[in-house]
Amino acid sequence: MTKAEIIAIGDEILIGQVINSNAPWIATNLNTNGISVQRFITISDNKQAIINALDDSLSKADVVFITGGLGPTKDDITKHTLCEYFDTSLILNEERLSILKEYFESRGRKMNPINEDQAMVPRDCVLINNEVGTACGMWFQDKNGKIVISMPGVPFEMKKMMLDAIIPKIKQEILQTPIKHRTVRTFGIGESDIASIIEDWETNLPSHIKLAYLPKIGMVRLRLSGSHIDENFLDTSIDEEIDKLYQLIPEYIYGEEDDELETVVAGILKEKNYTIATAESCTGGFIAHRLTSIPGSSSYFEGSVISYSNEIKINELDVPASIIASHGAVSEEVVTAMAKNIQAKYNTDVSIACSGIAGPGGGTEEKPVGTIWIAVTVKDRLITKQLSLSKQRDKNILLTCLYSLDLLRRELL
Amino acid sequence: MTKAEIIAIGDEILIGQVINSNAPWIATNLNTNGISVQRFITISDNKQAIINALDDSLSKADVVFITGGLGPTKDDITKHTLCEYFDTSLILNEERLSILKEYFESRGRKMNPINEDQAMVPRDCVLINNEVGTACGMWFQDKNGKIVISMPGVPFEMKKMMLDAIIPKIKQEILQTPIKHRTVRTFGIGESDIASIIEDWETNLPSHIKLAYLPKIGMVRLRLSGSHIDENFLDTSIDEEIDKLYQLIPEYIYGEEDDELETVVAGILKEKNYTIATAESCTGGFIAHRLTSIPGSSSYFEGSVISYSNEIKINELDVPASIIASHGAVSEEVVTAMAKNIQAKYNTDVSIACSGIAGPGGGTEEKPVGTIWIAVTVKDRLITKQLSLSKQRDKNILLTCLYSLDLLRRELL
Repeated sequence: MTKAEIIAIGDEILIGQVINSNAPWIATNLNTNGISVQRFITISDNKQAIINALDDSLSKADVVFITGGLGPTKDDITKHTLCEYFDTSLILNEERLSILKEYFESRGRKMNPINEDQAMVPRDCVLINNEVGTACGMWFQDKNGKIVISMPGVPFEMKKMMLDAIIPKIKQEILQTPIKHRTVRTFGIGESDIASIIEDWETNLPSHIKLAYLPKIGMVRLRLSGSHIDENFLDTSIDEEIDKLYQLIPEYIYGEEDDELETVVAGILKEKNYTIATAESCTGGFIAHRLTSIPGSSSYFEGSVISYSNEIKINELDVPASIIASHGAVSEEVVTAMAKNIQAKYNTDVSIACSGIAGPGGGTEEKPVGTIWIAVTVKDRLITKQLSLSKQRDKNILLTCLYSLDLLRRELL
Repeated sequence: MTKAEIIAIGDEILIGQVINSNAPWIATNLNTNGISVQRFITISDNKQAIINALDDSLSKADVVFITGGLGPTKDDITKHTLCEYFDTSLILNEERLSILKEYFESRGRKMNPINEDQAMVPRDCVLINNEVGTACGMWFQDKNGKIVISMPGVPFEMKKMMLDAIIPKIKQEILQTPIKHRTVRTFGIGESDIASIIEDWETNLPSHIKLAYLPKIGMVRLRLSGSHIDENFLDTSIDEEIDKLYQLIPEYIYGEEDDELETVVAGILKEKNYTIATAESCTGGFIAHRLTSIPGSSSYFEGSVISYSNEIKINELDVPASIIASHGAVSEEVVTAMAKNIQAKYNTDVSIACSGIAGPGGGTEEKPVGTIWIAVTVKDRLITKQLSLSKQRDKNILLTCLYSLDLLRRELL
């Protein structure tokens, strides 16, 4: 199987200021094309570090991807170092220069001399066009036929280059052995509890299939990965194992692959032709944001009231002041009124409401930080739930959103 | 200077399913303690890969940090591999067992046999307690005095371990040479335009100070990094250079270090004792979410109306239907009404409103995807601005939020 390594170049990554989201994206795309990524390496904008990393990676892999260090500024040294490594020199490329001039003209920006330097390219490499930025990509081949591909570090420039030019070129030039992954996503159960339930099944997985547990806040993803020369057999055997898994933990599985709770909920709403509104206190609009991050959300999402203050709960959501006075703003009574009233006011089929103490301040002995009430309506049905979450504000906002969406999902089914 | 490398173990990272946010966090914390991180390496849950990575990193660095592969499930092999690498064996640790039993009891969960295995620990290492999870950390020392520290991959478990135990132990056992960073954050100007303005200053930076450009959507961070044996001299010289930078591009700098536009805006609102409300269409609650992600935001944030549909713009925000009919929902007239009316209705000093075509669908020839109007009120002043953004929904939502906050920031100053 073809092996790849991905090298990210940039001091900003090594000091922790920027997260390298390029490597996972590249890996995902190589994987689905049957190229296995063995290592990610991140190094400094330093000539010797780049040369060492190239030596090391070319001794282990067939293809090496490099991101970063191609910008127009002085701290970017990748291009010069690659020239030295492949014993070639920079020449002015007139075509690049005119593409650059056009790039700046079409954006109504003045091209400055620093950018002109980006038309200087190595003599011995295949250039990869960059339609959305100023630094082109470079495809080198060493004397053993191994490939080094250098791309900009700006994610959308790198991605466009990969999708438009590099992946098609790789497909044409490199053979593949199939690898398949299938992931189911669970919500509301911990890693070791799942492991106990599915232990027998896990032990009896066929040898060409591996299971991985991928926990993240509030959820655990279960990924089966298989590799087999017979692609049909591989597909069938992974599907069979996934079917067994569904029978073991049906109530916890809400989706597969990249499904998020909001996309699953949105799918059900669209299917049923239902509309939704939210009345949010502690989540401050985060549930609405997640629901509207989906293209086409205007077909089911009507709007929201974010009622951070009690006045707005009373004046805009008609929560009786007496209820707030007797039960507190964080109570089953208040979220019940919020959910019912936003549903009526915004004339929707479905609603979500929540109120809680997100923290870090504001807790009391009776209602500590992390105390949250959520309510969901579907037509004339109402369900409420109390959560006892953590001390961390961001985690509480996220988990309240996820529990609300999961409560709605279960009620809609 | 003490050199470190960070190894992340996990197939889920290498296939791109999970982003390694641990390495940047560890690097940030080592850096401020004068330890320079030379490389991040990500490898598979594979014994030989782990051994090779340890050999390689211990040949280059003084301290090696490992995250991941300590979970209770079968795909986690780091502990066994470290035992083999350091030629030691696993023994049952009674203290760990009782800590584990208490951990499960206090959470009202049943301990299962898979978790009991987590009380088996290497004979020859210093154990690092894990107060928020079930896998303890391990601190090994090799025959040359080099250190290997293994931690869980779950970010909040790793972070607590680092802050409570590992960093104090490192400070006690390892000497340091000062490294300092200072970063200013700019909004609304591109990387090469900044580079042109500050070119002379950049060229004349003293040799112990380096500049890095760190672009991300809508903004560019400029980071100065210096290293010098005389810490006072280092501080003074970095501060002097930052002062010069402020004089070169004052209008674009909105903050430093981790400042986000919303925290800067929140700071000004609190200082002036102003309250804010938002009326959001295309951002679907994202501006409110960013403003309420800050602890204590209830002191300035009153609430929002998210008016995705025209009905809600008309009924809840009193936008005259005739204006929508004649100018369209995405227009200066509509955001002006939204901003003024939410300010009046929610009785705040300040408001933000926006309406636009976030995409990917919904564009017309006259108003293509990416056409956005924003309006801001501060007391009786009103400012509007039209944006022509991209074709990407998520990018448009984020940029609309950032431009709105920056418009408000400038108006508040």
